[in-house]
Amino acid sequence: MRTSEDVFHLAIPAADLDAAQEFYVGALGCKLARRYADRITLDFFGDQVVCHLSDVADDAPELYPRHFGVTFRHREDWERLLRLARTRGLTFFAEPFHRFAGRAEEHETFVLADPSNNLLEFKYYDDPRMMY
Amino acid sequence: MRTSEDVFHLAIPAADLDAAQEFYVGALGCKLARRYADRITLDFFGDQVVCHLSDVADDAPELYPRHFGVTFRHREDWERLLRLARTRGLTFFAEPFHRFAGRAEEHETFVLADPSNNLLEFKYYDDPRMMY
Amino acid sequence: MRTSEDVFHLAIPAADLDAAQEFYVGALGCKLARRYADRITLDFFGDQVVCHLSDVADDAPELYPRHFGVTFRHREDWERLLRLARTRGLTFFAEPFHRFAGRAEEHETFVLADPSNNLLEFKYYDDPRMMY
Amino acid sequence: MRTSEDVFHLAIPAADLDAAQEFYVGALGCKLARRYADRITLDFFGDQVVCHLSDVADDAPELYPRHFGVTFRHREDWERLLRLARTRGLTFFAEPFHRFAGRAEEHETFVLADPSNNLLEFKYYDDPRMMY
Amino acid sequence: MRTSEDVFHLAIPAADLDAAQEFYVGALGCKLARRYADRITLDFFGDQVVCHLSDVADDAPELYPRHFGVTFRHREDWERLLRLARTRGLTFFAEPFHRFAGRAEEHETFVLADPSNNLLEFKYYDDPRMMY
Amino acid sequence: MRTSEDVFHLAIPAADLDAAQEFYVGALGCKLARRYADRITLDFFGDQVVCHLSDVADDAPELYPRHFGVTFRHREDWERLLRLARTRGLTFFAEPFHRFAGRAEEHETFVLADPSNNLLEFKYYDDPRMMY
Amino acid sequence: MRTSEDVFHLAIPAADLDAAQEFYVGALGCKLARRYADRITLDFFGDQVVCHLSDVADDAPELYPRHFGVTFRHREDWERLLRLARTRGLTFFAEPFHRFAGRAEEHETFVLADPSNNLLEFKYYDDPRMMY
Amino acid sequence: MRTSEDVFHLAIPAADLDAAQEFYVGALGCKLARRYADRITLDFFGDQVVCHLSDVADDAPELYPRHFGVTFRHREDWERLLRLARTRGLTFFAEPFHRFAGRAEEHETFVLADPSNNLLEFKYYDDPRMMY
Repeated sequence: MRTSEDVFHLAIPAADLDAAQEFYVGALGCKLARRYADRITLDFFGDQVVCHLSDVADDAPELYPRHFGVTFRHREDWERLLRLARTRGLTFFAEPFHRFAGRAEEHETFVLADPSNNLLEFKYYDDPRMMY
Repeated sequence: MRTSEDVFHLAIPAADLDAAQEFYVGALGCKLARRYADRITLDFFGDQVVCHLSDVADDAPELYPRHFGVTFRHREDWERLLRLARTRGLTFFAEPFHRFAGRAEEHETFVLADPSNNLLEFKYYDDPRMMY
Repeated sequence: MRTSEDVFHLAIPAADLDAAQEFYVGALGCKLARRYADRITLDFFGDQVVCHLSDVADDAPELYPRHFGVTFRHREDWERLLRLARTRGLTFFAEPFHRFAGRAEEHETFVLADPSNNLLEFKYYDDPRMMY
Repeated sequence: MRTSEDVFHLAIPAADLDAAQEFYVGALGCKLARRYADRITLDFFGDQVVCHLSDVADDAPELYPRHFGVTFRHREDWERLLRLARTRGLTFFAEPFHRFAGRAEEHETFVLADPSNNLLEFKYYDDPRMMY
Repeated sequence: MRTSEDVFHLAIPAADLDAAQEFYVGALGCKLARRYADRITLDFFGDQVVCHLSDVADDAPELYPRHFGVTFRHREDWERLLRLARTRGLTFFAEPFHRFAGRAEEHETFVLADPSNNLLEFKYYDDPRMMY
Repeated sequence: MRTSEDVFHLAIPAADLDAAQEFYVGALGCKLARRYADRITLDFFGDQVVCHLSDVADDAPELYPRHFGVTFRHREDWERLLRLARTRGLTFFAEPFHRFAGRAEEHETFVLADPSNNLLEFKYYDDPRMMY
Repeated sequence: MRTSEDVFHLAIPAADLDAAQEFYVGALGCKLARRYADRITLDFFGDQVVCHLSDVADDAPELYPRHFGVTFRHREDWERLLRLARTRGLTFFAEPFHRFAGRAEEHETFVLADPSNNLLEFKYYDDPRMMY
Repeated sequence: MRTSEDVFHLAIPAADLDAAQEFYVGALGCKLARRYADRITLDFFGDQVVCHLSDVADDAPELYPRHFGVTFRHREDWERLLRLARTRGLTFFAEPFHRFAGRAEEHETFVLADPSNNLLEFKYYDDPRMMY
């Protein structure tokens, strides 16, 4: 968990800015900060994600080595997001499953895909000390 | 800025885990959480970055569309990291420069490259409301 | 100052939602949360402001009895917003002035007007105990 | 939710200052900060509401486009306020109801009326990420 | 310093409730929470002070053994209160002076008297670890 | 509830410093900060209470107009203190009772007496907004 | 509990740095900050523990007078650590037991031994005010 | 820096409990929580240090491998403690010096000795990220 007022930021490719805004703001519930001709900047769960207009898109996305997302400290926040994803019909890359069962670092996770096939993973760890 | 105890997480490719650990922990001052045969997990400025062993590396990295990093709320934190980068001889992809001069969202930035050519951008905005 | 995770919310009239979004998000630097056919919801300095499409607009706005805004705890935040307002050419209803000079509750203030003539007042008190 | 020590402030009309003080302080449980001949200033759930003596009152108030209030992060706080409103016999403009049922942004709400017919809406969202 | 959401509360005698309210709310800048026939309850710098109507008043108050007040963590807050006391012409029982000079627990202090001669002491310690 | 790093302080009479220390530190679980020949200073639930050696003691203490104590935000803290008072055999001036039943400001309370008959009241309000 | 951004630090002997790192990072879930030829520095539950290469080891460790560890504010954190200790097969010096039963300062505790026989005690107090 | 309400605890030997209390409480400004026949428990800069009566004392203490103390986030806190140590004539094991000059982890430090020759080190790092 973070103690500072700093913000993580991530830049990712987007094939189409309207589709990106529809996904991140309209569907995922993030907030739009700024829109330019070639990018949109978002308040993504309190961090900054910037979608850059680009033709570097993925036709056959794989979870490794690249993805991003949020690990929730509280289980009910992970569950609420899962509920929102279902309510709003978001595209699941991986349905919820339990990873590393039986190990101290076991956690719940599900993965969504954005319109440009960037993969978003959302996790909840049984033991918050294992969040890193 | 974030208010929750959640953690942002990012998965990136690493050609070599020892080199990755030497860069992130030994040089950049992040903390090692876990090491597996195929990945290392890090406390990266309070968020989780996972380096996955992978041959998806970049020979000719470009800042767009992919990079990640931290936007500092306090200027002295940005300056301290710049000082550490110079003290420890890290590889600069872009020396410090001022972006969007004259605009409300103007900011200071510099970019480092890790051993697998992932690009790390560190920013400081004149106006913290523009951090998103 | 507030200690809770609650949010103040305010509903105001807007003659045109595109103009409202351009002002609040594009100019004032707030964030767009949701857009409907008849309203937009905004993260306004951490609180919720909702602009409802309405023909109840004000041709000759007056500061009393209705206006809203933010009182900043830290002077530099008030100054940064003033700078942004000038940088981005926002419409001033009242240029910065000092109110109640010589009294414990003296404060700095300026007032902007949005496209539907809602008035926004931004204050900084010499003594933070006087913020209420 | 807010992270800063700033305060939202709102100015509204009041036909009578004694009635306003009786409602906001005596009934609603807010705190009186200052009283002048022409206004009272209140600590309203941690923000500043100023009631200005004015003959701009509403005989037939409508919820749109103008109202204000608080969105509670914790359900029990919304319930406690509802209980206080009933215990102290406050005037309900709208009894508690559920808005946007089935949608991610669904929420509980009720609306009170103050002596000058300003409408106060108090909400609780199923999903706190939808508070904006 | 305190870490909890608890509140210290103190009950003191007041010869006259209007005079008490005028002093604590009108002059000292505290906030009125509730008024009864026989007491007023106040938000006194974030704690609760209750003035009970009583004829137990002090004609010749002495600083020991009874007084109460606030020790400020930040010098500017002590200075602002001193400025407010002078601006609003409050009654000083003791003008600002430095106590325990040369000792680790040295501090600045001044003492006010309320209309019932309760003594209020406001301190600022050179070393915050000495605030207890 | 308080938001600052300031500390409330209260000075009270004590007939005997050893008895005072035994009560406040040994029994009530507060912490001793400093001891002088004529006073002891205590960290009392995060605030400062100073016991001054004095012959101003009370043979027949009454709850009004003078007493002090803590209002707990969380019921379990009030219950734990009650349990400690019973476990350690502290002197009750008033056994736990419910005050203002049926009113918004109803609360639980009990009162202890220290060796010099200063009265300590500990409260828990059904509605935390009523803590002032 | 602590309110500051300061860090407690402790230096202890380690017979072998690899074994120390395997225990603290690999097993106990702490984070590695820096490694030198003669010491490793760790983020130990948010404080700094430094293991210095040394032949001052303990063949027959005893709980008194030297040990260190963490007292958890929340029971579930103590339970999670106990679960991790069992899951990962750590060496128990003392299985969980209840100390000072019936007293206000009663608490749960267990003790682990590191590879150099430093003893680590982890506690949970029934009453958090007794954590000191 | 720590984010939790947990407390670090350390047990150390003390040849004499009165001398220990005089040093930690009377001189160093820590707070006494509990005193038993065989130990005293202290609030040591927000963590728990317990001094156990023991004949395991050190005639010729050395800084390695055992010592403990606090690393301050803010330079003025380190300076205040240094000033208190001089004002109150505490025993210095090492006068203030700068360690690791020129390295990112460079820091200021001084070391005190308690009556049983336990060594206490107090540090301030140029770069707070290096506090671990």
